[in-house]
Amino acid sequence: MSAPIRIAIAGHGNLGRGVEAAITRNPDMRLVGIYSRRPPSQIQPLTAGVPVHGMDALAGHASGIDVLILCGGSKEDLPEQGPKLAALCNTVDSFDTHARIPEYFAAVDAPARAHGKTALISAGWDPGMFSINRVMGEALLPDGASYTFWGKGVSQGHSDAIRRVPGVAGGVQYTVPVPAAVQQVRAGGQPRLSTRQKHTRECFVVLAQGADAEAVRQAIVGMPHYFDEYDTTVHFISAEQLQREHGAMPHGGFVIRSGQTSPGVTQVIEYGLTLGSNPEFTSAVLVAYARAVHRLHQQGRHGALTVFDVAPGLLSPRSAEQLRAEAL
Amino acid sequence: MSAPIRIAIAGHGNLGRGVEAAITRNPDMRLVGIYSRRPPSQIQPLTAGVPVHGMDALAGHASGIDVLILCGGSKEDLPEQGPKLAALCNTVDSFDTHARIPEYFAAVDAPARAHGKTALISAGWDPGMFSINRVMGEALLPDGASYTFWGKGVSQGHSDAIRRVPGVAGGVQYTVPVPAAVQQVRAGGQPRLSTRQKHTRECFVVLAQGADAEAVRQAIVGMPHYFDEYDTTVHFISAEQLQREHGAMPHGGFVIRSGQTSPGVTQVIEYGLTLGSNPEFTSAVLVAYARAVHRLHQQGRHGALTVFDVAPGLLSPRSAEQLRAEAL
Repeated sequence: MSAPIRIAIAGHGNLGRGVEAAITRNPDMRLVGIYSRRPPSQIQPLTAGVPVHGMDALAGHASGIDVLILCGGSKEDLPEQGPKLAALCNTVDSFDTHARIPEYFAAVDAPARAHGKTALISAGWDPGMFSINRVMGEALLPDGASYTFWGKGVSQGHSDAIRRVPGVAGGVQYTVPVPAAVQQVRAGGQPRLSTRQKHTRECFVVLAQGADAEAVRQAIVGMPHYFDEYDTTVHFISAEQLQREHGAMPHGGFVIRSGQTSPGVTQVIEYGLTLGSNPEFTSAVLVAYARAVHRLHQQGRHGALTVFDVAPGLLSPRSAEQLRAEAL
Repeated sequence: MSAPIRIAIAGHGNLGRGVEAAITRNPDMRLVGIYSRRPPSQIQPLTAGVPVHGMDALAGHASGIDVLILCGGSKEDLPEQGPKLAALCNTVDSFDTHARIPEYFAAVDAPARAHGKTALISAGWDPGMFSINRVMGEALLPDGASYTFWGKGVSQGHSDAIRRVPGVAGGVQYTVPVPAAVQQVRAGGQPRLSTRQKHTRECFVVLAQGADAEAVRQAIVGMPHYFDEYDTTVHFISAEQLQREHGAMPHGGFVIRSGQTSPGVTQVIEYGLTLGSNPEFTSAVLVAYARAVHRLHQQGRHGALTVFDVAPGLLSPRSAEQLRAEAL
């Protein structure tokens, strides 16, 4: 067995902790360091004996790291860290602001190329696994329609949005696919579905002392971009209930491609995820792609990449020979 | 737009006709020829104006073909044709004798390398799409269990087997997943399932004149390898019913990976196919992989390959830039 892949983590929130957990399940990898903007004394690694450093120590440690997994957020952290750190190390990140991916790709690609590094951006499940299935579905069935449904699961962005409403002391939002729409698509119908027909939104809200429930409800269901195009239900619950019943971060969804291969012959492809923990699954994807990045770097493939550029076999700890004999 | 990819077909059975149909749905491809061991006058192409030739004409035409799609069977045709034709053209095939894949890979790899050709073997849905999902599921969730269910669908091998039973004039066999097993696996349980617990087999049989129904039933349900490890039901029907109700070739199935990312946190990945026509879907896969083979050949990647070696983006007619902007 060859030497383990030396992984480091930049950022130790939900995603960073998920990456730590995932590395323990991959015996061909070793966690060599955790880097954070917080003082190292505030970080509690799950892995015994793993050193914790400030971000600024990374430059000096880069030669001992095969792949650095960036666990910061897409809004504030990655736009700044991604390009900077891709000049130092091979990287993997989960940049998920779909509309800004081309811009972010370019910003990471240049420093990675200039320094001979390999940087995979936007891994996870959407973008990530779902993107792969959208592209493959369309390639296999060019005459057809694609559908992505999310949920049932907690949307972080929508939960944040309801917590900003005056009178709200706490809350969580679930995105829920509309069963009738899913059924129709699965059966091979290719309906045109409006935003409202695809998903509903369900909110569990804790009111602040003295807040007017109806005013809060109105503020939520009419909120532009977040809720106004959906049928939204608001449930008012106690702070205890919120903590007890809504503390997990389940999510999931499915990508369905339905198409014809000849007149009257319908084929349906469905990829679905049922996730007990959204951040832990995203972390598991990042770790598998770190293996691929390490291999692609060894093959001399430099610059920015996405999941579309990675052959499935590179994700597996098994060799190409083993995969052909055991898994094809 | 660049010049269309010039595709040729070797073999014009169900698969070859499916490939013809698929090419018409991919505007970046053009069918340049059909090659068959049967006399060309016996072949009826679906595509107007496509020339039909004997197999032996291939050597002289190779320079006008970007990718040759081999549509022969895995038992008789491909073991002989695959290595021979990979010396002449870039090829794609659907070799599906799982146990002999390493041997076949080696037999195709040597001539392809020696002649600077690119040869992708064992594309389709199993081996093929299901294999990719087995490998990716295991890479993402290393602590877990994988399940492949097939059906409901017609198994060609099992249908052939019942038609060889004395007293049988015609028949078809459906492989059916056991709903309770599927439900348990989908829910994230990781049961150990015997062969009998995963699938049942359902046969529709037309008796020959004067045959003893019970003797035929016994011969089928006790047949070693094919039926003895399964719960098998045999229905006797008329020749008219067989033709009217069992003429289509639907199939499908699903690959489920269920695993833990931390204690008590279960994640489930499911990839499913519901196919109106098994050969037409396999053909659609072959055609998408022909696009990838053409590109890999242009990149100088020679020798035998499998679906594990092909990045998803190579299957799409869209460019890497388009995919990042539109599909990630």
